[in-house]
Amino acid sequence: MYSYKCITTYNGTKYNGWQKQGNTPNTLQGKLEDTISRMLNENVEITGSGRTDAGVHALNQVFNFKCSKQLEDNFADELNGYLPKDIRIISCESCSDRFHARLNATEKVYQYRIDTSAYGNPFMRDTAHHVPETLDIEAMKKGASYFIGTHDFKSFCSNKKMKKSSVRTVYDISFDYSEANSLLSITFRGNGFLYNMVRIMVGTLIEIGLHKRDTESITAALEGKDRALAGHTAPPNGLFLADVLYKE
Amino acid sequence: MYSYKCITTYNGTKYNGWQKQGNTPNTLQGKLEDTISRMLNENVEITGSGRTDAGVHALNQVFNFKCSKQLEDNFADELNGYLPKDIRIISCESCSDRFHARLNATEKVYQYRIDTSAYGNPFMRDTAHHVPETLDIEAMKKGASYFIGTHDFKSFCSNKKMKKSSVRTVYDISFDYSEANSLLSITFRGNGFLYNMVRIMVGTLIEIGLHKRDTESITAALEGKDRALAGHTAPPNGLFLADVLYKE
Repeated sequence: MYSYKCITTYNGTKYNGWQKQGNTPNTLQGKLEDTISRMLNENVEITGSGRTDAGVHALNQVFNFKCSKQLEDNFADELNGYLPKDIRIISCESCSDRFHARLNATEKVYQYRIDTSAYGNPFMRDTAHHVPETLDIEAMKKGASYFIGTHDFKSFCSNKKMKKSSVRTVYDISFDYSEANSLLSITFRGNGFLYNMVRIMVGTLIEIGLHKRDTESITAALEGKDRALAGHTAPPNGLFLADVLYKE
Repeated sequence: MYSYKCITTYNGTKYNGWQKQGNTPNTLQGKLEDTISRMLNENVEITGSGRTDAGVHALNQVFNFKCSKQLEDNFADELNGYLPKDIRIISCESCSDRFHARLNATEKVYQYRIDTSAYGNPFMRDTAHHVPETLDIEAMKKGASYFIGTHDFKSFCSNKKMKKSSVRTVYDISFDYSEANSLLSITFRGNGFLYNMVRIMVGTLIEIGLHKRDTESITAALEGKDRALAGHTAPPNGLFLADVLYKE
């Protein structure tokens, strides 16, 4: 068997998320598996670095798969020829047969984009969350600083039945504001993120930016380990899986 | 009668261009006129600074209209409440009753965006023209320099029956390349542009960038006054009406 590591970017607007689930049509995993399987004329299963929800995008999502044939150098180009234009393969390279896109990931980077224009940028409807009210970005930065480090993020997870550890390490949260298009981008780096964790952190930071809660409430939410103590789940359209890093 | 000047931005992907024409559904002018007329309960006609073709976008399109009622200060916000999200009103202000969005315009700015990524950015499908082959940008800049100044642009116009002067002045053409997203933006400033003129100039520059024609062919095309001497018409999705300027 041959092993391959692929990097894909997709506009998640029209998809029911990454993970193939029963008969749910139109998942990214399903679309990629079906297309690769048809091209190679064998049943291929792909393993993503993690799921993305319906409407969430990826700048660089990583997946791996095994197959019985050695692929040509132009396989990525050929695959792009068969895929819809909103899913693109950036690269596809031979890898160790021990490589596992999810288990071997050491760091993930997510970006959340907020359109702060008064009227709502008509070119960012699917790729940014529109918040027309004035955001206190300095307060949001202060609030974000409480997330940095190793914490139990149980309050920032939508999965109530989660039995595994909800402790994660957030390495960095950076803010970038582009005057030109009134776009606020918040980039999160960490060793991993729980289900909906980035969106709940963003929802909480937005509430802080709107002065609907104070910055210290984040410490209380982390300590309380109760989803009700955190803010709302920000919508999926602003979220991008930006990068997945591996020790190599 | 009261007179108003409005600035609008729209994603033209789903529209049959700016101009209302007979029964053509889904034009920007038609959508705006219908919505404003219904809000004010009177027949309003709007005058745009110029047409944009089907699939062409606007960052700042200007139009004016007259009506019998004085509008409230929050009219733009209210209008946005009734318009689809891919058409937004940036501002709506009282103006002189002699103001005419098309006749008074002294300068227009268009931007054309080219996605130069190998695989085609899935987030720019409607807002950039994808050219995966390597473009010689220096040659394109050299070619563009021949457009600057006052010329008869007859070869760069799709309207064969044009009886008015096809002499226009191009003030400036600037190139901006963003490494981050492999995006080449070409910005054209001039006192006015003929039908499809920017798209034909871009199509010609792309042919130069691909070494399918030489830079001097632009001089020959300008002098020859024959559409066949210029390049192809670049597709509409990369074109943005960026600004319309008035002497004030």
